[in-house]
Amino acid sequence: MRNIKLLIEYDGTNYIGWQSQPSYQGKNIQGIIEAGIRKMVHHEVRLNAAGRTDAGVHARGQVANFFTESLIPAERFPWALKGILPYDIVVKAACDVPEDFHARYHATEKTYRYVIRRAALPDAFDWKYGYHFPYPLNISEMEQAARFFLGTHDYRSFCAKGSPVKKFVRTVTRAELIHDGDYLYFDVTAKGFLYHMVRIMVGTLVEIGRGRWQAEDIKRILAKKERKYAGPTALAHGLYLQEVKY
Amino acid sequence: MRNIKLLIEYDGTNYIGWQSQPSYQGKNIQGIIEAGIRKMVHHEVRLNAAGRTDAGVHARGQVANFFTESLIPAERFPWALKGILPYDIVVKAACDVPEDFHARYHATEKTYRYVIRRAALPDAFDWKYGYHFPYPLNISEMEQAARFFLGTHDYRSFCAKGSPVKKFVRTVTRAELIHDGDYLYFDVTAKGFLYHMVRIMVGTLVEIGRGRWQAEDIKRILAKKERKYAGPTALAHGLYLQEVKY
Repeated sequence: MRNIKLLIEYDGTNYIGWQSQPSYQGKNIQGIIEAGIRKMVHHEVRLNAAGRTDAGVHARGQVANFFTESLIPAERFPWALKGILPYDIVVKAACDVPEDFHARYHATEKTYRYVIRRAALPDAFDWKYGYHFPYPLNISEMEQAARFFLGTHDYRSFCAKGSPVKKFVRTVTRAELIHDGDYLYFDVTAKGFLYHMVRIMVGTLVEIGRGRWQAEDIKRILAKKERKYAGPTALAHGLYLQEVKY
Repeated sequence: MRNIKLLIEYDGTNYIGWQSQPSYQGKNIQGIIEAGIRKMVHHEVRLNAAGRTDAGVHARGQVANFFTESLIPAERFPWALKGILPYDIVVKAACDVPEDFHARYHATEKTYRYVIRRAALPDAFDWKYGYHFPYPLNISEMEQAARFFLGTHDYRSFCAKGSPVKKFVRTVTRAELIHDGDYLYFDVTAKGFLYHMVRIMVGTLVEIGRGRWQAEDIKRILAKKERKYAGPTALAHGLYLQEVKY
């Protein structure tokens, strides 16, 4: 049995997220790619993804694996799927991996990027690809705040309510704000994240940038271990799964 | 009577073009902006645009003017329309102009940009914003060919059949290819263009880049004064109205 690893890019705008959702009408990305692969290999496949992104969330570097007995060379998959998949889902690369490889369980590092656009007026092209925040932000206070995310913490305050997980401790190895003209990026790396964790981190950083809280308040919010003490969940369409490492 | 000039940006993907089309179902950009302004000034307005872009064509620097007796300060229009117009149409600036100003008749220079993306695989985010051409192109031959467009020529070979215009002579003051990583831009400036002129220029340059014709063939095609001798009309979604000068 072959195990094939895919590198996947998608514009999440038109999808209900990576996986099917009982409560959402619409297309899920996983199902569309599985159907595309089925057309090539002539049997059902099941994709395991590194990150099950939500509705509207984008990916530049999603990774998923699937099993097949097909003899199609791995490098054919991107080319053949180009003609099968919709334009907003692109398989960028494919390779054979050992049979025990699992895209989610074996990920050692995942990096998300959140995009904030700060120009006064919106951009007709970019509105689905970033969060437009045209008000003043104290960036140096936000940069100090981001540093409090580094290290191992109980992130229960930064986890959406109703999440079924029971362990809330996560280790963040990078939490950095990057300026690029009108754009402000928040890049965050960890082995694993809680549900909505990055978006709640961003919503909290924006509250600090606006002056509602100070950088040090991150420590207080982490210590509370209750969702209601953190900031709002930032909009999905600013979030990108950038890179997964193994 | 006040005359107000607007600078407008739009993503043309979801529209049938700038103006209403009897043969197309769908929304036109002009009608949507006119309806938005009507909500502000409480009377019908009619926009004159510098370029009446086709379905799928984008604008970074469309210019239009309209007449009103409203006392709303010009600089309020971008801000107020931000809350009225859909996200993919943005009025970037507005100012009062003399009563005889007409956005189309008084334009002294219009610049269009055509975007070709040359990477091997498509991009999930960019497919609506450029023409993906992943095959080899002889760029230096295309650059030589572009130079033959400079100056005053009868551009009948580069005008869509069925166009009602009777004068085909146009003066091109810039026709330049620009490399930027995976992207190739064709920037072309003239006082006025014929129907589909830029897209037929691009379709012809691509034929030259592919090796079907040589740079010198531009002279031959211009001399023929018949549409069928030029290359195909390049896809609309690679084209941007970049800038209009007065």
